Amino acid sequence: MNTPDLLLQNVRPMGEAICDVLIEQGRITRIGRALAAPPGVQPIDGQDQLLLPGLVESHTHLDKTLWNLDWYRNEVGNQLIDRIENERAYRAQTGHDSAAQSLALAREFLAQGTTRIRSHADVDTEIGLRHVEGVLQTREAMAPWQEIQIVAFPQSGLLQRPGTAQLLDEALALGADVLGGLDPCAIDEDPVRSLDVLFEIAERHDKPLDIHLHEAGDMGAFSLKLILDRTEAHGLQGRVAISHGFCLGDLAPPARDALLARMARLGVTLITSASPSRSVPPLLTCVAAGVRVAGGNDGIRDTWSPYGRPDMLERAMFIGMRYNLRRDDEIAQALHCVTRAGAEVCGFAGYGLAPGCRADLVLVPAQGIAHAVCARPPRSLVIANGHVAARDGQWML
Amino acid sequence: MNTPDLLLQNVRPMGEAICDVLIEQGRITRIGRALAAPPGVQPIDGQDQLLLPGLVESHTHLDKTLWNLDWYRNEVGNQLIDRIENERAYRAQTGHDSAAQSLALAREFLAQGTTRIRSHADVDTEIGLRHVEGVLQTREAMAPWQEIQIVAFPQSGLLQRPGTAQLLDEALALGADVLGGLDPCAIDEDPVRSLDVLFEIAERHDKPLDIHLHEAGDMGAFSLKLILDRTEAHGLQGRVAISHGFCLGDLAPPARDALLARMARLGVTLITSASPSRSVPPLLTCVAAGVRVAGGNDGIRDTWSPYGRPDMLERAMFIGMRYNLRRDDEIAQALHCVTRAGAEVCGFAGYGLAPGCRADLVLVPAQGIAHAVCARPPRSLVIANGHVAARDGQWML
Ligand SMILES: [Zn+2]
Ligand SMILES: [Zn+2]
Repeated sequence: MNTPDLLLQNVRPMGEAICDVLIEQGRITRIGRALAAPPGVQPIDGQDQLLLPGLVESHTHLDKTLWNLDWYRNEVGNQLIDRIENERAYRAQTGHDSAAQSLALAREFLAQGTTRIRSHADVDTEIGLRHVEGVLQTREAMAPWQEIQIVAFPQSGLLQRPGTAQLLDEALALGADVLGGLDPCAIDEDPVRSLDVLFEIAERHDKPLDIHLHEAGDMGAFSLKLILDRTEAHGLQGRVAISHGFCLGDLAPPARDALLARMARLGVTLITSASPSRSVPPLLTCVAAGVRVAGGNDGIRDTWSPYGRPDMLERAMFIGMRYNLRRDDEIAQALHCVTRAGAEVCGFAGYGLAPGCRADLVLVPAQGIAHAVCARPPRSLVIANGHVAARDGQWML
Repeated sequence: MNTPDLLLQNVRPMGEAICDVLIEQGRITRIGRALAAPPGVQPIDGQDQLLLPGLVESHTHLDKTLWNLDWYRNEVGNQLIDRIENERAYRAQTGHDSAAQSLALAREFLAQGTTRIRSHADVDTEIGLRHVEGVLQTREAMAPWQEIQIVAFPQSGLLQRPGTAQLLDEALALGADVLGGLDPCAIDEDPVRSLDVLFEIAERHDKPLDIHLHEAGDMGAFSLKLILDRTEAHGLQGRVAISHGFCLGDLAPPARDALLARMARLGVTLITSASPSRSVPPLLTCVAAGVRVAGGNDGIRDTWSPYGRPDMLERAMFIGMRYNLRRDDEIAQALHCVTRAGAEVCGFAGYGLAPGCRADLVLVPAQGIAHAVCARPPRSLVIANGHVAARDGQWML
């Protein structure tokens, strides 16, 4: 695809001094004052607005969303297993179209400035690989502008339904980027075997891992220890992420800090949705311990939860509110979770506001980073992989 | 002021069947199918949208807000006392205009469908009654459309600065509607004398009380018990509200439930902002115990906190998220906190979607209540005290 050159004038990268950004062949090539437009390029006036790098969604479930559909009346029980079973029944009844749904949400994410997404896609013995295939279609459709990683996710557990491990194997062979896992004690009820099977698949395919760990307190800490042991044993340092990790919000500081120190040594990262109703890993403590923390919405308007919006500035605000970040310097940490830290945790390449980086840029009418997070203003302009993708929330492609 | 009659056609009150609403002289006079327009009245087509009663903000601080001003760079320490002292210094430096600021925020609240507001206004020995006077001006300016209650609030404590009690006295004489209080142990450091002075003023002026109680755990429970004792002794049953009441989120169920049962008997209510970073009173448990719970933003974009927006549907969403309310019937409880429960807790008269009620109505493009809370759509139409106040967020008065 032909990528026209762009000159974006009068913007404030990360709230710093006003400058211009030159984009050539989909990359940022120069950032400076009063840059000359290349021949034939009509400059875009950024009107002194705040320039952010493309936003990063590190944990969502594009395949599950009911975005743009009629409102789903939620009458589901409150247990995890109720929600899993309800979703299975819903799919059986409706023939939920994971390709169309994931595409609708990915497009809206892009219109709101999100240029990189890690999405889990359910794999189980009833739907098989249908959801992975659906999100693969979306990944391909969005590839010119948005980078999507797919996590093959055993939503119903890895051991409970025989055949799941083989399906995960096939999902990775088909093109899933990451292997997902889920609560080895609470769901699989055999943590050692569950994790051994999981790590064996990851090592065989040479893929990173992203494990949903909802387990609380000591049970979660136990599972986490088993995960860290296997990260070391399988040489997967720097390639394992823990999603949620609620247990880290429950533990007393000595036990918690020992786990965080080991996670930092092994390059095991955290991905949080900053749930307001659960214990959560203490963000600033984790970061100070050297553990990278990225942010994600988790599911957006699905049979699990009616909440969420494909807006990573709003998610940064939720992170800020959950962790009671009120100072401007603290709120910058919340934005970091949905920008650079997200890119680092997920391994998105060429990320940032610097020459050589992929031209993923978001312009917002905000006076600074904290203002952007708290006010979540409309996205004036979204440039994705060098293309003008959206203006004021409206799709331009 | 002359209030034209209105006929609102094709709306779904609280998501129920489509009907019309006739408004005469600022009151709802009829709700039914295919109502005839009175002579000279041009009907408004509600296009089958969801009709809600005017939204209710039960706890905010209009006087403090920096809404519409340049972004305030927050570099404040994390202790309550840091924030109080910082705010005092900010006011001394800037000559903060509480009249202009409260008016700007009240107008935006109305544009977003909030027709009744309880606002605290600081009273202390440095600003004296300036903030009460500022919000009184706003109350008068908005009176044709929006009902504002003013709580005379001793932000720096009642006992710590001699002269504060007399200022509260004067604030009530000047027209404040409610007497405010604050942490009798943690701030005043003499809970018995603090509460005795406070209740004496309330009784003498025959005014209700609304007490900020941030104190956690057993300390908060102790203060709450002293408050309940005095509610009973002074005959203030049904006229005392506890704002925040974080301690009720900390206590073990037996102690908590005994307090809730006594609160229910004495008609002592709760007002929550559903803080995501603090313990909070368990909403559904409180309601089941017979304690009314209303919702409020607390401060919106001030020197205390950069968060918040004058949008009570967003606050209802925060309440829903904080309490993990996912079912449609549970989410209706979150809306209840910012509609009828707010009106009941604050004592706003003539509230509701029924003939005889004040014509405060909000129309939103949502399929039902849970949808409105989760999506927070633009307010298509706001009718305030019988007047078309805003359309699509734009002021029409
Ligand atoms: Zn998830
Ligand atoms: Zn307050």
